[in-house]
Amino acid sequence: MSVLIVGTTALDSIKTPKAENPRLLGGSASHAAVAASFFAPVRLVGVVGEDFPERYIRLYRKHGICLAGLHRAPGKTFHWSGEYEVNMNHRRTLHTELGVIENFNPNLPAAYRRSPYVLLANIAPALQMRVLDQMHRPKFVIADTMDLWLNVAKDDLLKLLRRVDALVLNDSEAHQLTETDNVFNAIPRIHKLGPRHVIVKKGEHGAVLSGPSGRFVTPAYPLRKVVDPTGAGDSFVGGLIGYLAASKGPVEKNLRKAMVHGTVAASFCCEGFGLNRTTKVTRQHIDERVRQFEKLVRF
Amino acid sequence: MSVLIVGTTALDSIKTPKAENPRLLGGSASHAAVAASFFAPVRLVGVVGEDFPERYIRLYRKHGICLAGLHRAPGKTFHWSGEYEVNMNHRRTLHTELGVIENFNPNLPAAYRRSPYVLLANIAPALQMRVLDQMHRPKFVIADTMDLWLNVAKDDLLKLLRRVDALVLNDSEAHQLTETDNVFNAIPRIHKLGPRHVIVKKGEHGAVLSGPSGRFVTPAYPLRKVVDPTGAGDSFVGGLIGYLAASKGPVEKNLRKAMVHGTVAASFCCEGFGLNRTTKVTRQHIDERVRQFEKLVRF
Repeated sequence: MSVLIVGTTALDSIKTPKAENPRLLGGSASHAAVAASFFAPVRLVGVVGEDFPERYIRLYRKHGICLAGLHRAPGKTFHWSGEYEVNMNHRRTLHTELGVIENFNPNLPAAYRRSPYVLLANIAPALQMRVLDQMHRPKFVIADTMDLWLNVAKDDLLKLLRRVDALVLNDSEAHQLTETDNVFNAIPRIHKLGPRHVIVKKGEHGAVLSGPSGRFVTPAYPLRKVVDPTGAGDSFVGGLIGYLAASKGPVEKNLRKAMVHGTVAASFCCEGFGLNRTTKVTRQHIDERVRQFEKLVRF
Repeated sequence: MSVLIVGTTALDSIKTPKAENPRLLGGSASHAAVAASFFAPVRLVGVVGEDFPERYIRLYRKHGICLAGLHRAPGKTFHWSGEYEVNMNHRRTLHTELGVIENFNPNLPAAYRRSPYVLLANIAPALQMRVLDQMHRPKFVIADTMDLWLNVAKDDLLKLLRRVDALVLNDSEAHQLTETDNVFNAIPRIHKLGPRHVIVKKGEHGAVLSGPSGRFVTPAYPLRKVVDPTGAGDSFVGGLIGYLAASKGPVEKNLRKAMVHGTVAASFCCEGFGLNRTTKVTRQHIDERVRQFEKLVRF
């Protein structure tokens, strides 16, 4: 079954202690869509400007991503630039240029409105809701978010949370949202805000799922070298929903394996700048790494 | 089979944002011995001063810990006092009084010298080696350490590493020892220093094992409330070696399950000040939590 993904489609300029890479394909929707595309057909909803390189359009297409919902607007593509510290755990934003995303008002192609799986990747909660308003009874809706929206659009975010099946956020965001300093304290409070499923990402320390079938805790896939972690969280949730969309049976039954496939998608993301590594990966590479992961965690 | 444990036997005065607890039973050997005692007979090697409370001797005995190797020396018991920050992830030492530990020269009872399992819990590497010198072909030797010894006794530590089967250390110590900032880079470098098995503790983020059968990654047991993490690492390695000593078959086959039992022992340790919670636990509580843990990580 197909996955509809809305989020940012951006150009990322990324500096690490070892290298500098300008104007890479980035954005939450780009990372999530490529990761999801290994498992299921993807429909992308986003906006790019006149400066968006044609080679990135080809790259989406190479991954079979449907672009009927990708708007091209007059003006510049959303551009983010950031810098990572030596250990890759902390980054700081150098510059943000909203460009065409500032006036984005997603209008979904008719065919998209019955997509069974919906990923509201990180973008303003008002836009996430506008997409949801146009959907016809989706089977499973996941929302991702970021600290910015907790700061500037918390009311919108809280409204959104009452309408989604799952919220994905990282540990510091979970702490901020619930004013606690412990993930396992934060989770029940987030459930009370709406989502039946809560997924907390902990970067190199893995992720936690909480839902009707209890909790699931998974480490990250061990990497000896992290080249660029930008988009790892988006790849995680993209791989997760892609795997769900491709799996038979109730979502509940497939969620843990989906978390593991998301974990593996995120690991590939970290091994190259932007989408450089992920776009060279095949489903076979992912399945092989999932098998490795099973060996790593079994006891 | 029995486990010989050498390390510090101390009095800990612990301050957290919520409470202050003076002169608790503490020390690496105390925590490790109690955790190991749930699984196997334990022989404790350490030194206490004249001020060591009789009730702590009774507490060791309640756990069936053999005290033939616990020396009582003139002077004061090793006393550590420290303070935790709000989120319990950082602590600072307020005061250290070495007392009788300063002139400790462990002399093992004859019966102890053939103990098959040996835990060199955190104490000066020179003392860890002195114990090892007296052992007769132990089956499996684990050494724990701390940042202090990396700073003031690195040469001794490096000598020790060539004589042990396993080194246990936390992630920041692994980084310091190998001058890397990535656990999975540090591990092969530590293997080169001697130990066939390397176990890196990551606190609330779990632990990693590397050895001849490959790597094993496990999360920590999820806790909603951490009362006092002092001794959690010692409880982890104590539970680990206790489980190994109680298990049939080659160590290699049992190590992953031993890691999980250590993880659970550490979780109980965190739920009370000092050994307050651990000493109220039974093997049944541990087994029940191991079953919960299995459900948490299976996919």
